Amino acid sequence: MADGLNMSRRIRRTPYTDRVEAAGVRGYSVVNHMLLPKAFEPSLEEDYWHLRQHAQIWDVSCQRQVEIKGPDAARLVQWMTPRDISGADIGDCFYIPITDRNGGILNDPVMLKLAADRFWLSIADSDVLLYADGLAVGAGLDVIVSEPDVSPLAVQGPKAEALMVSVFGDAISKVGFFKFDHFDFRGAPQLIARSGYSRQGGFEIYLDDSALGPALWDTIWEAGRPFDIRPGCPNLIERIEGGLFSYGNEMTRENNPLEIGLGKYCTLDGSIDFIGRGALQKIAAEGVTRIIRGVAFGTVPCPSCTMPWPVTADGVRVGQMTSAAWSPRLKCNVGLAMIDRSYWDTGREVIVTSADENRHLGQISDLPFS
Amino acid sequence: MADGLNMSRRIRRTPYTDRVEAAGVRGYSVVNHMLLPKAFEPSLEEDYWHLRQHAQIWDVSCQRQVEIKGPDAARLVQWMTPRDISGADIGDCFYIPITDRNGGILNDPVMLKLAADRFWLSIADSDVLLYADGLAVGAGLDVIVSEPDVSPLAVQGPKAEALMVSVFGDAISKVGFFKFDHFDFRGAPQLIARSGYSRQGGFEIYLDDSALGPALWDTIWEAGRPFDIRPGCPNLIERIEGGLFSYGNEMTRENNPLEIGLGKYCTLDGSIDFIGRGALQKIAAEGVTRIIRGVAFGTVPCPSCTMPWPVTADGVRVGQMTSAAWSPRLKCNVGLAMIDRSYWDTGREVIVTSADENRHLGQISDLPFS
Repeated sequence: MADGLNMSRRIRRTPYTDRVEAAGVRGYSVVNHMLLPKAFEPSLEEDYWHLRQHAQIWDVSCQRQVEIKGPDAARLVQWMTPRDISGADIGDCFYIPITDRNGGILNDPVMLKLAADRFWLSIADSDVLLYADGLAVGAGLDVIVSEPDVSPLAVQGPKAEALMVSVFGDAISKVGFFKFDHFDFRGAPQLIARSGYSRQGGFEIYLDDSALGPALWDTIWEAGRPFDIRPGCPNLIERIEGGLFSYGNEMTRENNPLEIGLGKYCTLDGSIDFIGRGALQKIAAEGVTRIIRGVAFGTVPCPSCTMPWPVTADGVRVGQMTSAAWSPRLKCNVGLAMIDRSYWDTGREVIVTSADENRHLGQISDLPFS
Repeated sequence: MADGLNMSRRIRRTPYTDRVEAAGVRGYSVVNHMLLPKAFEPSLEEDYWHLRQHAQIWDVSCQRQVEIKGPDAARLVQWMTPRDISGADIGDCFYIPITDRNGGILNDPVMLKLAADRFWLSIADSDVLLYADGLAVGAGLDVIVSEPDVSPLAVQGPKAEALMVSVFGDAISKVGFFKFDHFDFRGAPQLIARSGYSRQGGFEIYLDDSALGPALWDTIWEAGRPFDIRPGCPNLIERIEGGLFSYGNEMTRENNPLEIGLGKYCTLDGSIDFIGRGALQKIAAEGVTRIIRGVAFGTVPCPSCTMPWPVTADGVRVGQMTSAAWSPRLKCNVGLAMIDRSYWDTGREVIVTSADENRHLGQISDLPFS
């Protein structure tokens, strides 16, 4: 098999990996030097329908936490992102793109404000810890940057809330979207947020002790039986339909937040100072030349999109697609693509050429797909 | 299959991946968000014997280059490492551990000095680019930190030199160990160093244009026929026998250079300033409490070491093994382990408990194994 993954200590296992293996995982990806389950029996499509109807348990330990703590913590976090974090309260989750001097995106974590002087950045796939530590050492900031022993476990799907109530009690229903609170598990408080990498609702448990991992998995699993629980993972079809982007796929350091549609998270009026402000102000003044859009295309399922596919119109290249999957609900392929300004209007016809050289007729779509 | 690797753009292909696939790769690892081939037919042992006798071509594009360029380049590189780089000439390769404030190892790249104000760091698996850029921005250093389009291709084995002479001419024989020079390929100069992740001799071609990747692979491949060339990759048996460590396996941020046996690369007399100096001076003064050692163990092949195995003596834990393989030459297993001070003497008997619960009798060994 050409795509086996050779395991070693460097590709870190998680507190849940034993359970994931027992549950029949069929494949992994590697995120932040750690295993992310990517496929379970019987199929991506079955998993998609199940996620939309029931409850799933996901090992998302690879969402590592970068803890920034100390008198200069808030100053450092604000310096790293164009989003104004001054309005964040303790208990808030803020999605914060991190930008470099050119406005390029280095990561797009969720920030959790634990205290006035203590933050977690729940990161996508790049070593934000090294960046934050470099900034802190370089500028002489009074912070400690570390990776705590925190292993997020997600419970997602329309039945997730009922399941979580059965384990943690009614109080968990009061946690608002992108908010968190602490709940007891085996005598220790655990941070639980209403969040997750799907549009089906649910929670993420930031388990703060890897030794409790198997017990937490088993507890959720047993409590989940009445809710038709299954092991799962971020579902490619569901996340594309939902317009959820993936760092490294839809965006890299070559992209700025404005072309990813994150303008609403960029405060460019000069009221906050952050790395890349000048570059983003210039880009905003000139207007972006491309933006990420949905594309609905084709009448037969496309292959996996493992490298960018060209999107053309009028015989010229007008963009590239970075994620794609067949939607069994919409009866077409759905994809996420960076599209040039002249072609990004909803309804515009384009051609998507998949890796198998098939040319699919498509249309620019709003996100999320409806 | 439980250990499939799900591909996406985020797990980057290399300029040689098409060729590697055509050559029958059986598995990958992921290093620096990029594919590293890890296994070819027919077996690890066949590959080991072949590497010791002939010539191999390895796709090591994942050894990404972090380019640091500008008036403050040398100052920044020196700040990142305990090794005194003032003696490096243009054309030198220096192995330089990178340390954090606690003396913990963040990476162990090879530094290539391209000019007085331009360096490449050929990195192991962590985002050194983000660390260097953070330091530069934080301290206001006048440098540009970037990842150039450079894709190293290694030619390793005792016949590598003859092969390289047949392609690049006699002058390549004059390149000394851990030195580099430039040689023409298709009209453009390419940096070639006498280096590589084996003890069998060879070169690394730092191809500076990914579009030339397939042509370079094909040229080496065709020229290699008289030298019994085969596709290969860093060989686990050979690298353990040779005492070549792997960042993320033998060492992490929890380890300092002194316990990895890199004391000779640490200038602690105060003549240079670098991040972690105070911490390393303190550790050196107190003496390290553990050090990495070889262990020869067992009479039957052990399984893969995918997570640390305990090493015990006198009924107590005295260390952990992080890489292990059966040596068909030494007729025992060979492993790399971090061993406590009281037990690290050569010849000391220890017990290695592999993941299958087998307890193997072993002996502490010098490195490289002989």
